[in-house]
Amino acid sequence: MKAVGICGSDVHYLKTMRCADFIGHECAGVIEEMQPLQGRKIPSLPCARTPPVHGSLANQVVHPADMCFKLPDNVSLEEGAMCEPLSVGVHACRRAEVGPETNVLVMGDGPIGLVTMLAARAFGVPRIVIVVVDVDDNRLSVSKQLGADGIVKVTTSLEDVEIKAIGSTIDVTSDCAGFNKTMSTALATTRCGGKVCLVGMGHGIMTLPLTQLQVVGVFRHKNTWPFCLEFLTRGKIDHIDVTPLITHRFGFCQKEVENAFETSACGSNAIKVMFNL
Amino acid sequence: MKAVGICGSDVHYLKTMRCADFIGHECAGVIEEMQPLQGRKIPSLPCARTPPVHGSLANQVVHPADMCFKLPDNVSLEEGAMCEPLSVGVHACRRAEVGPETNVLVMGDGPIGLVTMLAARAFGVPRIVIVVVDVDDNRLSVSKQLGADGIVKVTTSLEDVEIKAIGSTIDVTSDCAGFNKTMSTALATTRCGGKVCLVGMGHGIMTLPLTQLQVVGVFRHKNTWPFCLEFLTRGKIDHIDVTPLITHRFGFCQKEVENAFETSACGSNAIKVMFNL
Amino acid sequence: MKAVGICGSDVHYLKTMRCADFIGHECAGVIEEMQPLQGRKIPSLPCARTPPVHGSLANQVVHPADMCFKLPDNVSLEEGAMCEPLSVGVHACRRAEVGPETNVLVMGDGPIGLVTMLAARAFGVPRIVIVVVDVDDNRLSVSKQLGADGIVKVTTSLEDVEIKAIGSTIDVTSDCAGFNKTMSTALATTRCGGKVCLVGMGHGIMTLPLTQLQVVGVFRHKNTWPFCLEFLTRGKIDHIDVTPLITHRFGFCQKEVENAFETSACGSNAIKVMFNL
Amino acid sequence: MKAVGICGSDVHYLKTMRCADFIGHECAGVIEEMQPLQGRKIPSLPCARTPPVHGSLANQVVHPADMCFKLPDNVSLEEGAMCEPLSVGVHACRRAEVGPETNVLVMGDGPIGLVTMLAARAFGVPRIVIVVVDVDDNRLSVSKQLGADGIVKVTTSLEDVEIKAIGSTIDVTSDCAGFNKTMSTALATTRCGGKVCLVGMGHGIMTLPLTQLQVVGVFRHKNTWPFCLEFLTRGKIDHIDVTPLITHRFGFCQKEVENAFETSACGSNAIKVMFNL
Repeated sequence: MKAVGICGSDVHYLKTMRCADFIGHECAGVIEEMQPLQGRKIPSLPCARTPPVHGSLANQVVHPADMCFKLPDNVSLEEGAMCEPLSVGVHACRRAEVGPETNVLVMGDGPIGLVTMLAARAFGVPRIVIVVVDVDDNRLSVSKQLGADGIVKVTTSLEDVEIKAIGSTIDVTSDCAGFNKTMSTALATTRCGGKVCLVGMGHGIMTLPLTQLQVVGVFRHKNTWPFCLEFLTRGKIDHIDVTPLITHRFGFCQKEVENAFETSACGSNAIKVMFNL
Repeated sequence: MKAVGICGSDVHYLKTMRCADFIGHECAGVIEEMQPLQGRKIPSLPCARTPPVHGSLANQVVHPADMCFKLPDNVSLEEGAMCEPLSVGVHACRRAEVGPETNVLVMGDGPIGLVTMLAARAFGVPRIVIVVVDVDDNRLSVSKQLGADGIVKVTTSLEDVEIKAIGSTIDVTSDCAGFNKTMSTALATTRCGGKVCLVGMGHGIMTLPLTQLQVVGVFRHKNTWPFCLEFLTRGKIDHIDVTPLITHRFGFCQKEVENAFETSACGSNAIKVMFNL
Repeated sequence: MKAVGICGSDVHYLKTMRCADFIGHECAGVIEEMQPLQGRKIPSLPCARTPPVHGSLANQVVHPADMCFKLPDNVSLEEGAMCEPLSVGVHACRRAEVGPETNVLVMGDGPIGLVTMLAARAFGVPRIVIVVVDVDDNRLSVSKQLGADGIVKVTTSLEDVEIKAIGSTIDVTSDCAGFNKTMSTALATTRCGGKVCLVGMGHGIMTLPLTQLQVVGVFRHKNTWPFCLEFLTRGKIDHIDVTPLITHRFGFCQKEVENAFETSACGSNAIKVMFNL
Repeated sequence: MKAVGICGSDVHYLKTMRCADFIGHECAGVIEEMQPLQGRKIPSLPCARTPPVHGSLANQVVHPADMCFKLPDNVSLEEGAMCEPLSVGVHACRRAEVGPETNVLVMGDGPIGLVTMLAARAFGVPRIVIVVVDVDDNRLSVSKQLGADGIVKVTTSLEDVEIKAIGSTIDVTSDCAGFNKTMSTALATTRCGGKVCLVGMGHGIMTLPLTQLQVVGVFRHKNTWPFCLEFLTRGKIDHIDVTPLITHRFGFCQKEVENAFETSACGSNAIKVMFNL
């Protein structure tokens, strides 16, 4: 049975994960064996609000059974591994209470920006504008492919983000970069009485003019896996596809792993890098 | 300028409405002239919570300017006239607070059932099951076309509605028929703690077992036009189309009007009948 | 240590309960001994959504430790035993979302009507009107004492409930009788767009005109004990007192128990009857 | 007829206001004359989200009729004038969604801190802790009198606000000072997942660590007068009294006005200074 586990634990009941993202806390695999807990040492609980333990970059992992979710037949392992990043977007959308009556601006077109955009669509958001930094052709094309209604290009890295012509009122801004400059732009761009959702964590401390807006801080996710699996299943019908986010795939020999790390570090055109184990 | 007016008033500022539904309180048209209110007798205010005055079955109507909404360029007059029935579905979805985390059952595949299904999709509802009565091939095909995830066929008219195998938990049921039998089925089918939304008004008084469910009574709509226009505009991108609901079109001479009424009264395959004036 | 247990279980870890209500699923006591679960047969889990097992009418009961809550020093055992009925009122207030901007009508001045009134005050409700049936002087006086802003007296038992002069708009009605007649009166009295909360369960099936109101069905309570204990503690400061609800107290010998049952059955002036064990 | 007007306009229909606060945008009075609008120049609309026009420090003012609210018989003119500051507290409580299940910390014991505390009580908040700055005996006594459950004293003016022992979890903090130091203390003191409501506006720009908390910016108030009048009326029953906030009263001759200004500027023991005109 294919299954997807909640992130980052090296406490496992699954074996032979077949697919994993670059960092190693996003994974899906095939269950080879179920074992009772008894007599087996469990090293730690999976990451809740602590830095995650990135245990899935291995040929076999053990995962707690009650944190595994069955993948529907029409969802592939690499789509399943996307549950974790998607969850960040879903959690942000829940916390900011976006819906069919809120226009959303997403700051940042990195993986988190893009999954937040996808999640916003799942919540029925009618208009999504994305701020694309240091215009990379690949990300630009993925933004369009994933359904951005508007794209705002900014030229230098987060230093002079100025958004002039968005063309519609912004009710909710999701700052997926989390820098002082992006947050101040978010606060200036969102309509009076709206919400700014702080998803990214670029800067720990920021100097900002706080106004009558609401700033909603989010941290990771909770109770999102069933939602994400539904989203992935439903996506097949509605032509919402997460695979454009997966830009590179590697095997798991020494050389491929080195290449994968290099691709991710150097190539700004990489979004998600996957290993097939 | 093309515009769509809020329903049913014979208080008007628009002239030469080009399109109107069968009953005559759903209309869109082209503004020919703006006139100041002064010195002009206004017969009544438009229907709020009173039986509507169906004034738009005429070559020219006058409509209050502040109750007219500009139609976007890519929305046709007959799509614009669909704002009124769509509004019923949108209002029901708002009141029942449906969203990307609620599975919805729609009882009834009449015009209101079908627009409620469309609205539920706009609210991000992942699974929509519709109960189709006295299976009519046309309605069945429209239900599929508008995106029903499941269809439950019942054979006789509302008397023995029994829903056996829905296949997913129902969080919200919208009863778009409003008969005693459909409401009791709705109450029995919806999950414990869920909501039953009473949209249709078949029976004024019902005999029901009230339980820990919530029964949400809705009546028409309010503040829905901007949402519906956004929905129609956005639908062009997302391939959500209201035109399958318009099954017949007629002109406005005596003979055509007679035919239109006959079609609507006899033919169960008619959903929405439109006049082109 | 004094403690209060969640209702009605004969699965226990507490010993020597000192106080219990008449039915026996409302209790508080002093913990005599803690025992590990191991090797001990647990007859059943406490009542969740099943008919409660009324186990506390005994000199000693055993109660699951994780369903016991420490009573604050200033809350007596008999006040603690009131957590269970209070919970019904608190749950109804939560579900109906009453607050400082909703006027509330309570139908019925039995124990549940009176605790719902108390809970509504805790939720900041500014005006509470109570419908008193078959005017009993004692209940009338308790209603006033507990803070009713208005009292409507009806003369015969639930047959001709007609509420003429309430004097303020009713946003939420809590029907604590749950008869067809009280529900239809509730639906007629509550403002358009308001809510009727069905708390009592007099009639299983009712014949009603359902309208654009919301009918909120409630069943017992969940997660209310900490709230109730806070309420009882805080009540000492705000002079909100539950003890007027306790109208009779008995010991636990055979004769006293017989008297207690008789008092409760015959005397309409009994609200809550308590045993001191 | 006694009436209370919405703040700060010198557009008026009332005459002979009898009572006004120090700044002059909080007032109540007796209506002497009603005049039609026609032919009368209206200088400006009342303050909505612009700096208020403080027009009520005069023997007679004219106020728009639809922005006047009848004072209940048992509410005095000076209590009525308190509607404006109370509204700030009410609006903050609404925006932060406080209620019977939220513990609240109020930073600052100035007039706004104190009215926010009063409003929190009206919303059913069970525990309110107030941070008292530069302990002034008068304010301390008023804080107790208005129902603070806990008082935290800090010794120097906002520079070293450190809150060590609050004794209960804080769900919502209302920062009624709005300085960088108070906000950072608020963010550190409020429980994970809670809300910090920014009511005061000491610093326009702040340097803060934004976390998974929600920061709710509020600005003045809207639609609060009916609520406040209900609150004042109801307060007579519940012994909630706003008059301890009014610490000084003056007449309206030149000398009294000078004294009033001096009292307000120098005397830290002044909370609200009222004129009787």
